[in-house]
Amino acid sequence: MTLKFELTALDGLKDQIPTLPQVDNAAADAARARQDSLTKPPGALGRLEELAIFMAGWQGVEKPVIDKAQALVFAGNHGVCAQGVNPFPQEVTLQMVANFEAGGAAINQLCRANGADLSAIALELDRPTADFTTGPAMSDADTLKALATGASAVDVTAKVLVLGEMGIGNSTVAAALANAVFGGTAHDWVGRGTGSDDQGVERKVSAVSRGVSLHRDASGLGILAALGGREQAAICGAILAARAARIPVILDGFICTAAAAPLFAVDPAFLDHCLVGHRSAEPGHQRLLEALGKAPVLDFDMRLGEGSGAALALGILRSALECHNGMATFAEAGVSGG
Amino acid sequence: MTLKFELTALDGLKDQIPTLPQVDNAAADAARARQDSLTKPPGALGRLEELAIFMAGWQGVEKPVIDKAQALVFAGNHGVCAQGVNPFPQEVTLQMVANFEAGGAAINQLCRANGADLSAIALELDRPTADFTTGPAMSDADTLKALATGASAVDVTAKVLVLGEMGIGNSTVAAALANAVFGGTAHDWVGRGTGSDDQGVERKVSAVSRGVSLHRDASGLGILAALGGREQAAICGAILAARAARIPVILDGFICTAAAAPLFAVDPAFLDHCLVGHRSAEPGHQRLLEALGKAPVLDFDMRLGEGSGAALALGILRSALECHNGMATFAEAGVSGG
Repeated sequence: MTLKFELTALDGLKDQIPTLPQVDNAAADAARARQDSLTKPPGALGRLEELAIFMAGWQGVEKPVIDKAQALVFAGNHGVCAQGVNPFPQEVTLQMVANFEAGGAAINQLCRANGADLSAIALELDRPTADFTTGPAMSDADTLKALATGASAVDVTAKVLVLGEMGIGNSTVAAALANAVFGGTAHDWVGRGTGSDDQGVERKVSAVSRGVSLHRDASGLGILAALGGREQAAICGAILAARAARIPVILDGFICTAAAAPLFAVDPAFLDHCLVGHRSAEPGHQRLLEALGKAPVLDFDMRLGEGSGAALALGILRSALECHNGMATFAEAGVSGG
Repeated sequence: MTLKFELTALDGLKDQIPTLPQVDNAAADAARARQDSLTKPPGALGRLEELAIFMAGWQGVEKPVIDKAQALVFAGNHGVCAQGVNPFPQEVTLQMVANFEAGGAAINQLCRANGADLSAIALELDRPTADFTTGPAMSDADTLKALATGASAVDVTAKVLVLGEMGIGNSTVAAALANAVFGGTAHDWVGRGTGSDDQGVERKVSAVSRGVSLHRDASGLGILAALGGREQAAICGAILAARAARIPVILDGFICTAAAAPLFAVDPAFLDHCLVGHRSAEPGHQRLLEALGKAPVLDFDMRLGEGSGAALALGILRSALECHNGMATFAEAGVSGG
């Protein structure tokens, strides 16, 4: 997928929202009217109705379908691991990519169960980003390259895109991005991640605090270069490419949602086509959801990443569309009271 | 399905719990150990892990499967409609049963999407129960007959059972059952149902209050006869038959959960094999879930009935088992840190 606009510099997104597809309000209104004609009390399917209307608005049709769903999991390694922020060695990132390729990870099972075609994309795992406590994590060129990799991975024939990530140390990266975009203190955004003890959490807080302070002058996608990783940049690129193709996106938990925060910093409208699949058990996610103004689809106490919560939400989205498209209207069924 | 015990009188369930299958703790423990060996941080799949362990315990195997799922929707009509408790005419119950049979209702789409075989079972719709504000809703014989109908509808080869209901006026019946079993006031349990206005809600409160007062000496399944309907009795029968066959049950929302309350009144252990699929938007459901000590699988602001929330939860249960059975262990995948 090539973006409609040229992204040759990190400030290239400014004022680009008007060039991108917007929600089709006429299609959403038609879907809303259809929901009220179906054989049920108005509103009785709750959030399933909202999801069907959301999909109608972005697909631009009264009866949206998901005949193809894509899942992309981006993986990267992070220089900030030098600060002792993670109990696992960085080799685990590559080992988990091998696990994705062999079909043994949670995301493989969840994509099979919920009907998504999964691709795992490793981003220069042997070349971790720089330690953001001592300088920018990535050069502008590296950031643009990862953005382009993410954008080009999007299958423009898919009807929905599930996004996920893998990267040892990247809950620290996520906390730093969220802190830089939304303020507060490092403590507000740091959690235990995959299993840090109290001392590990303190090392994360310290690293995030120092990094955010060092890069306090960064803005927009400059924050992504300063504090992000390649998988975060690829997620941003995929979100933009999906938007250009009118493909709704399901973001995963804390790390995936935080990856999108720099786009939100440029303009919140860049995330209008994005759902958040679930509320992560990582405590910073609730704060992040409130800052973004997004209600998660599911709340299942999950904290795995990989796109697992987003893939689970895809199944709910499929059920929403089955009801929307397959139910009889009051008139069709001859039921009184419609 | 024939129950192992003879249910020839409404007090026939007393002391029957020891004759019924119990959760297999060894299988549940084996499933828990398996979860901790899979390629993820322990606990990172949150409630998906709990669901897999629950299924293992009831199927009695480390790796539970759902190769067949059954959904049963029971429909009945209610004499208490004479009290003006519902804005829709009772003919809608039969019309909706026809809609189930024609495949046009929400539950049809949700069963197809989530892989359940659906049967809609109409229970003497032309012979509503008696008005519980003036006498018992059903005779003991009628109650036993509906219990047997529910029990015999259970396919003992299914690996999970989704339960739902349809019946104009039955949110009033549900409030009465919950009030009789768990106390409080009629106001605590009455909501708007399918769309009552303020005056309709007051009529519901009045009917529930008078009915519960009139039948205050009823206990156990006597409450079901006094205040219930045929679909409520059939749900109780199906729950018992599923238990006898070690089949886990997914209850739906307020009305379906309240239908099970008389079993809980006999002995809370009768519901040990039951999940609640979702938290209904009907306000009494939260109170009912707390009284039963059950956390719902989903919370999706739905209030339709028909088994819709339970069928949606079935999809989540399938994803839980796909992860449980399909994921690689740390040892199998060669991933560090397990």
